[in-house]
Amino acid sequence: MGETSHFLDLFFNPKSVAVIGASRNKDTVNYFLVSNLVNLGFPGKVYPVNPNAKEIMGLKAYPRVTSIEDDVELAVISVPARITLDIVKDCVAKKVKGLTIIAGGFSEIGAEGRKIQDEIRRLLQENGIRAIGPNALSPINSANNFIVGFRPTTKLPPGGLSFIFQSGLYQPRLEWLLNQFHLNMAKLIDLGNKMDINEVDALEYLAQDDATTVIAMHLESIAGDARKFMRIIKETTRNKPVIVLKSGRTVAGAKAASSHTAAIIRSTDAVVDAALKQTGAIRVSGLDEFFDLAKAFEYLPLPRGNRVAITSYSGGEGVFTTDCAQLQGLELAELSKETHRKLSEVFPPWEIPINPFDTGVAGQFHSFDVVNSFVEAIVDDPNVDCAAIQVGIPPQIASSSTGNKLLKPYTDLIAKGRPVALWAMDPDISAGMTKDLEAHRIPIYPSAERAVRALGALWRYKLWREK
Amino acid sequence: MGETSHFLDLFFNPKSVAVIGASRNKDTVNYFLVSNLVNLGFPGKVYPVNPNAKEIMGLKAYPRVTSIEDDVELAVISVPARITLDIVKDCVAKKVKGLTIIAGGFSEIGAEGRKIQDEIRRLLQENGIRAIGPNALSPINSANNFIVGFRPTTKLPPGGLSFIFQSGLYQPRLEWLLNQFHLNMAKLIDLGNKMDINEVDALEYLAQDDATTVIAMHLESIAGDARKFMRIIKETTRNKPVIVLKSGRTVAGAKAASSHTAAIIRSTDAVVDAALKQTGAIRVSGLDEFFDLAKAFEYLPLPRGNRVAITSYSGGEGVFTTDCAQLQGLELAELSKETHRKLSEVFPPWEIPINPFDTGVAGQFHSFDVVNSFVEAIVDDPNVDCAAIQVGIPPQIASSSTGNKLLKPYTDLIAKGRPVALWAMDPDISAGMTKDLEAHRIPIYPSAERAVRALGALWRYKLWREK
Repeated sequence: MGETSHFLDLFFNPKSVAVIGASRNKDTVNYFLVSNLVNLGFPGKVYPVNPNAKEIMGLKAYPRVTSIEDDVELAVISVPARITLDIVKDCVAKKVKGLTIIAGGFSEIGAEGRKIQDEIRRLLQENGIRAIGPNALSPINSANNFIVGFRPTTKLPPGGLSFIFQSGLYQPRLEWLLNQFHLNMAKLIDLGNKMDINEVDALEYLAQDDATTVIAMHLESIAGDARKFMRIIKETTRNKPVIVLKSGRTVAGAKAASSHTAAIIRSTDAVVDAALKQTGAIRVSGLDEFFDLAKAFEYLPLPRGNRVAITSYSGGEGVFTTDCAQLQGLELAELSKETHRKLSEVFPPWEIPINPFDTGVAGQFHSFDVVNSFVEAIVDDPNVDCAAIQVGIPPQIASSSTGNKLLKPYTDLIAKGRPVALWAMDPDISAGMTKDLEAHRIPIYPSAERAVRALGALWRYKLWREK
Repeated sequence: MGETSHFLDLFFNPKSVAVIGASRNKDTVNYFLVSNLVNLGFPGKVYPVNPNAKEIMGLKAYPRVTSIEDDVELAVISVPARITLDIVKDCVAKKVKGLTIIAGGFSEIGAEGRKIQDEIRRLLQENGIRAIGPNALSPINSANNFIVGFRPTTKLPPGGLSFIFQSGLYQPRLEWLLNQFHLNMAKLIDLGNKMDINEVDALEYLAQDDATTVIAMHLESIAGDARKFMRIIKETTRNKPVIVLKSGRTVAGAKAASSHTAAIIRSTDAVVDAALKQTGAIRVSGLDEFFDLAKAFEYLPLPRGNRVAITSYSGGEGVFTTDCAQLQGLELAELSKETHRKLSEVFPPWEIPINPFDTGVAGQFHSFDVVNSFVEAIVDDPNVDCAAIQVGIPPQIASSSTGNKLLKPYTDLIAKGRPVALWAMDPDISAGMTKDLEAHRIPIYPSAERAVRALGALWRYKLWREK
């Protein structure tokens, strides 16, 4: 299936979009609804709708969606809940094909809000109009810069990672995700109150979306057909990893989930967990792990085997990292004779074990970067399937003149199908090199345990695929 | 027991210390062996020993330790391994009471190094001289600024946290630990090759050290009396938490440990684990957790119960955090009527659940800091034992004029015996406020799961203490 065959494609690739509630006031968040589309060069037609403006960001503004002369495929609605119903009626009259309702104040606030939401749903169903939300953010598509958001956003680095979010879990950190975190995103969909479109639709769409190579999904409740949902995951994981963070796992969590979204939690966590286990989904238990693995799967190839090469700045950290690796199902690689010969040139004046390799002790006797020498030495070693590398010396990496040269052994490893995960000596060093490394799809993590956990997840997914 | 009664006290509180290998060349790491002592105002007598210098940092330098006119209690040796034996002979002649041998190149490099190490040990034993190392860093004592290190160090924030390290696990991040991480350290001891002084001695010393309120220990092998070791931990955990990171947990890890320190691993991990379980030690599985819990135990009181108040910037993160809390043995607090009344003033125009509290939705309708209002509201709630708080808005916290006012609800909570753990909306915000918060002993973590894990550890330790 190509992209255009699924009804959800409209919400990511509209030819024409009305932005209802757009503002020309730069001090309001609604200013950015249109400004990002214009500044980033979204190629579709954009119609700002605002009864008090003639023009917004150089585009003609319209008092109502019905005043727009041309056809409108998609409407994005960001106005107070109390007037949303009238706006929806306008959209029905205009014969828009899809609606994204950003506004909150519906089922999540109680009976009164639910009543309006139910009326909107009835109206849309009668007219065959599909809708995301309410209480959702607008979907994001990095391929065409379709970003209708509340914050200024820079051009997103293109990539294969697509997100499905529920209940605003990611919203507080959206700005950071989009602007600071090198996640190389294809698409993002936030489901909000799931009045119409739900997690099954979103998953089905991303499963067949060619731009999406990795799906990372936050799941709080299953509103759609749970059997179909599990079946799609199982089919998808043959080709694309599906990372799942399920919340509402505990009794208290499920109760909190129910009260904040008014969703009915129909399946207990144990049932969902048992079903997910059969699907090959990569289930994570925390947000750190969720983003760590999303990054690893987007950046890196799957390893051919489970043999890992490790280097660290202290023998103690090498031991600790070896433990982490074995607990993740990885085995220490027996490095080849040729690698041993190469590494003997970076030994201290005595012979040291080569895996895990202690660059701290070796580095005391050499003026060159021993970590780079280690990575160069293992690039062609047929016994190495993946590598966990502790790095230091951020100024070298950060220097643009020599940066690429220093990154080469890492990109070579990856190009040869060997995933590599880095961590730094301390958080300050890590902060100083993250941008350069991750622009080259070399992931760096805050600690050895997290670097190795990412490699372990790649390996276990590889095993699942081959099963 | 007072501090001075244990033989190890000499290594932390020497009245006079010879620094053998001190350098006046600022470009060498050995420069900082003496410079930190002078710059930070270590009150004992310091004798730099260097055959090529007359004076170092304004102090008279001596060609040999035997040239020093006065008595020398402690000698710190940082010279190449090949001349260490001769230096040790000088120290014996000088009748020093203790030796810290920083130099590496002994048992950890093979048979030749082990031979010299054995000869040094024999010599010291014959003369009743105790020694730390070799291949160790010098102990650190924040109370008297006794820091003989390789890097410039600022005055350490005093506190109750003491570390025992093996095999240099922490060495690559020592500079960060000392200068960037607000760990409020009492003492640090690094055991190196454990030729003489081992983990049992170190633990015994810190257990009876009045300045130490929390012990955080990295354990790679047990060189001393394992029964005594476990007995001391069990006695100590009645009064002080003992956090243990054991590496060499896997077969591969244990093998790596054995080869890099030449330590004989006599106990399998399963045996150590089973023994530790009986002691009340807080066993952690990673370095992140090790430092997270060390910080929590040093900063915070133990909670009276397990009832937690949670607030976050999205309902979804509130649900996720509730899950994490319950998995840690915490229960959502049923906030009092009075708290409900206070919080109703920060509600959006409709009523929302108050625990977990969604400050994201509430904040949209108020111009003041809703997070602070939440924390103020729970300060006097008798149903709250601890709190997990997601924070934003770093400029407010960072502003020194208003900073203390904004921090007050947090410090009030802590003062009333209620531990609080924070996390931020994203890493950039976290970085912007960490220093101000942690200077007031308010811990901030990178994620909800880590904040709640720290609170859970405090609660479980409280249960152990009361058992």
